[in-house]
Amino acid sequence: MKVILYMAMTVNGMIAGTDDKTNWLTKEEAESYCSIVREAGCLIVGRRTYHILTKQPEFQEFNNAKLIVVSHNDVRLVDPSHAVAHSPQEAVDLLSDFREIIVAGGGILNASFLAANLVDEIFLDIEPVILGAGIPLFKGQSFERDLKFLGQKMISDSEIQLHYEIVKENSYKG
Amino acid sequence: MKVILYMAMTVNGMIAGTDDKTNWLTKEEAESYCSIVREAGCLIVGRRTYHILTKQPEFQEFNNAKLIVVSHNDVRLVDPSHAVAHSPQEAVDLLSDFREIIVAGGGILNASFLAANLVDEIFLDIEPVILGAGIPLFKGQSFERDLKFLGQKMISDSEIQLHYEIVKENSYKG
Repeated sequence: MKVILYMAMTVNGMIAGTDDKTNWLTKEEAESYCSIVREAGCLIVGRRTYHILTKQPEFQEFNNAKLIVVSHNDVRLVDPSHAVAHSPQEAVDLLSDFREIIVAGGGILNASFLAANLVDEIFLDIEPVILGAGIPLFKGQSFERDLKFLGQKMISDSEIQLHYEIVKENSYKG
Repeated sequence: MKVILYMAMTVNGMIAGTDDKTNWLTKEEAESYCSIVREAGCLIVGRRTYHILTKQPEFQEFNNAKLIVVSHNDVRLVDPSHAVAHSPQEAVDLLSDFREIIVAGGGILNASFLAANLVDEIFLDIEPVILGAGIPLFKGQSFERDLKFLGQKMISDSEIQLHYEIVKENSYKG
C-alpha cells in the first residue's frame, strides 16, 4: 500500500487563496486530478476540502471512488459510501485494501499526514501563478523531510508536474 | 534592462528555516547561484539576507558584483562598493546601467518587488526538501500574478530549476 499526496499549487506553494478560491486551475489540471483519483479508487481529504470538493463538477468524474474525510468533528456526508476518520492513521487503516491511497488537502490535513510519516510519494502540479497570500501546501506544523526526485512531466504547456518520494529514514537533520 | 528573481526553495516554497538556515542547499545550487550573479554583475538583497550572504563562502565567488541592500534603516556595509537603497524602485534605478538585475531574497524583499511590478522573470531552484515551517518565498503582502512557463532544467539529479516570465498586463483576476 502506497500513500500519495497529490496537490496542485502556485509556484510559491499556495494551494488556494485566502478565500479558498482556486480559479487558476485548468481543465488539464482537473483531468489529471480526476484520473489519479479514479485510478486509485480512493481519496482522503480534510473537512473543509470535502465540502468544497463535493460541490465541484470534477467530483462527478471520480466514479464512486471511496472518500474518507478526516475530521475531529461530525461531518455531513453527501453520500452514504463516504466515511469519517478521526486521524490520518485511521483514514489510512480504513483504506488498507487499496493499492494506492490519494491524499489531497487542505494544508492542515497535508501537514498532519507528513508529520505522522504516512506519506510515501508526492505529486505536485505547479500552476503558473503567484499568490502572495493564501493557504499553503503544509499548514500548522513544523517538520522537515528529505525527498528523492523521481521525475517530472508537463501536464499542459504551462503546468509542470513534479514527482518525489519521501525519504523515510534519517529524515531529520536537526 | 530585465529584473530577475532568483531563489532556491523547498518544494513547498520555503527559502529558509525559521532559524534562517539553508543547510539543504547543495554545491550545485551554490554554483548555479554564483554563476547567475557573476553573469549579471549585480545583485539586490534585503538587509537580513545581506548579513547572512556576506558571511557565506559563495560570496567570494561573486567577482565584485555590484551589491545593493534594500533597507529602510542604516546598514553596516562590508565593502565600500556596496550601496543601500530605500525602496525596490530605488535599487533598480541604481543599477540601470546593467542589462540584467538579480533579486535574491529574503521573502519580504521578494514580495515588495513583485507587489511593485518590478520583476520580469523568475528562476526557482526546487530543492528536494519539505520544511513545514520557515521563511516563505513571498512574505507579508497579498498580490496575485500570472506567469508564463519558459522552461525547466535539472541542475543536479535531485534539483530542478523552473523558469517563468511574469505576465505584466491583466495580471489581476480579482
